[in-house]
Amino acid sequence: MSWKTLEYKDGKVAFIDQTLLPGEVKYLTTSDYRVIAEAIRKLRVRGAPAIGIAAAFGVVLGALEYKNSTDLPGRIEAIIAELAATRPTAVNLFWALNRQRAVLEAAKSKSNVELIELLEAEALAIAAADERINRKIGEHGADLLQDGMSVLTHCNAGALATGAYGTALAVIRVAVEQGKRISVFADETRPLLQGARLTVWELMRENIPVTLITDNMAAAVMRMGKVQAVIVGTDRITANGDVANKIGTYGLAILAKEHNIPFYVAAPLSTIDLSLKTGSEIPIEERAPEEVTSLGGVTIAPAGVRVFNPAFDVTPAEYVTAIISEYGIAKGDWENTFREWVNRSSREP
Amino acid sequence: MSWKTLEYKDGKVAFIDQTLLPGEVKYLTTSDYRVIAEAIRKLRVRGAPAIGIAAAFGVVLGALEYKNSTDLPGRIEAIIAELAATRPTAVNLFWALNRQRAVLEAAKSKSNVELIELLEAEALAIAAADERINRKIGEHGADLLQDGMSVLTHCNAGALATGAYGTALAVIRVAVEQGKRISVFADETRPLLQGARLTVWELMRENIPVTLITDNMAAAVMRMGKVQAVIVGTDRITANGDVANKIGTYGLAILAKEHNIPFYVAAPLSTIDLSLKTGSEIPIEERAPEEVTSLGGVTIAPAGVRVFNPAFDVTPAEYVTAIISEYGIAKGDWENTFREWVNRSSREP
Repeated sequence: MSWKTLEYKDGKVAFIDQTLLPGEVKYLTTSDYRVIAEAIRKLRVRGAPAIGIAAAFGVVLGALEYKNSTDLPGRIEAIIAELAATRPTAVNLFWALNRQRAVLEAAKSKSNVELIELLEAEALAIAAADERINRKIGEHGADLLQDGMSVLTHCNAGALATGAYGTALAVIRVAVEQGKRISVFADETRPLLQGARLTVWELMRENIPVTLITDNMAAAVMRMGKVQAVIVGTDRITANGDVANKIGTYGLAILAKEHNIPFYVAAPLSTIDLSLKTGSEIPIEERAPEEVTSLGGVTIAPAGVRVFNPAFDVTPAEYVTAIISEYGIAKGDWENTFREWVNRSSREP
Repeated sequence: MSWKTLEYKDGKVAFIDQTLLPGEVKYLTTSDYRVIAEAIRKLRVRGAPAIGIAAAFGVVLGALEYKNSTDLPGRIEAIIAELAATRPTAVNLFWALNRQRAVLEAAKSKSNVELIELLEAEALAIAAADERINRKIGEHGADLLQDGMSVLTHCNAGALATGAYGTALAVIRVAVEQGKRISVFADETRPLLQGARLTVWELMRENIPVTLITDNMAAAVMRMGKVQAVIVGTDRITANGDVANKIGTYGLAILAKEHNIPFYVAAPLSTIDLSLKTGSEIPIEERAPEEVTSLGGVTIAPAGVRVFNPAFDVTPAEYVTAIISEYGIAKGDWENTFREWVNRSSREP
């Protein structure tokens, strides 16, 4: 990978403003955690793992801003709360902020300089780990893809959504590296077109064959035998294996089942939220109606129309063929497998 | 209904340019059959029954243009062929042109003036019949809707697609006239947004409550229990009950089945094509990639991306709960019911 979605250096975070893609590849550089919070809210940075990484660095920027404060821990607590309020669905956001909170708890008696160093080290560790995790997810998942397969994906679970190779797209990238000829169908993913704008852009940069379709073409494409697997990312997985992801994922899972096509979900362990029993407990973000009624400044529906705009849906575990994490592949027996992964992760250095 | 989608008067056809809706309500008036052909190709006039009506009047305009020709029948044959080549999927186009061809065959020995009068009378009869048929479809279909129901529809099968009340939307209109409180979820219907632009516009004009969603939200809306029926129109139904309609319809039918929601198709008898055994024989129009990659002049995907853009899909009969025509409601036993309808229609004056 010759480019990074987000990088931290010398007290500054640089990130691609994804709302401008594919028209413009523009990096924003900031030392202000509020700019990070705004970027998450406005989807300049999006994708569950990338949101977690951005938030972890946001805490570092905030700590640097208040490095001379007599109550740096209190300041940091407030900044963590502010970052946590940006978006409700992706659990990686809270997971990353909890890791920074744990650093804070353990280092409360330290000097401001030492505390900031520890927070910075933790954020860098989260980002570096995500790159390794992406790779591992790709390696496990690639076993599920055979030479010549065509894969349907939804939204963007690629490099733009993570610290490096992506989750769903890491699976495709590694399979291609292994010499398998893999082609991709990308759902455009209304309303914000992350598939058309981001997934297509990423795959074209790497010369992986990609065909763009509108979301409502997926069923016809499956019926025609044009895809042999569906792979998506996720924003939160509950203990029973229910999967929250970009709106439209649930429908795709039903269509895949009806056509006997496997439905795979690729995600780091940090996306699995064992504190929730089922998907019905996941808060689903509803976003502004304008996301649906206008596009690039062009109004596409009558003024004043009522709109329903949930950003995510929940796919019940019964529709999921397998969940791919850095620890391997789960196929049913979800909670036990997740707990085994957590145990392995807790034994790691 | 206080407005008409298309009207013929004194050798001219006036029609709403539907590509400009909802931003602008602009009627185009023409005496040139080529403008009608272009309007069908460019979707200024769309919807299976409306295409049939427009084509029937197109033949009249062509005949008037060549009223002094020494070979008017030959001219008309050529014009019919030109109009038939505009779009491949909706059978009503060919049905209406065949009716004009039959008029031509029966009147070949007549004078040009008499022949033109007969073609004009036939086109007016087709348009007037469509209005009665719309009404009948609405009355039969309304029996399927109960007070308080919410109905999901796809694309536009309304007044803009027909001679009067629509097909799917006629069912809703008549149910509302009967005093039932019916609300509607409208799929936006990418790529050309007939749901967002046309269905929402029609329903808001009549104060029928409508909520706009993107196509990929339908599954979540069903799961939440927000809709109790799906009603769509169709461009062609084959003898075995397979239904061709706007891309996305097939996926909706699968989702409806999975959620135990009835899936209804509303169409005039002229949409049923008994010459085809199954949906696999229906030609499916593929349209230009730009319909997917740009929107209102705004480019939404990287330049040069490969696109698959089928305009229609085929829903196998097994997913269809009922087909509503002007002759009643078919629930399975498709071909026999269709043939019974054809027999009844042939006995009509």
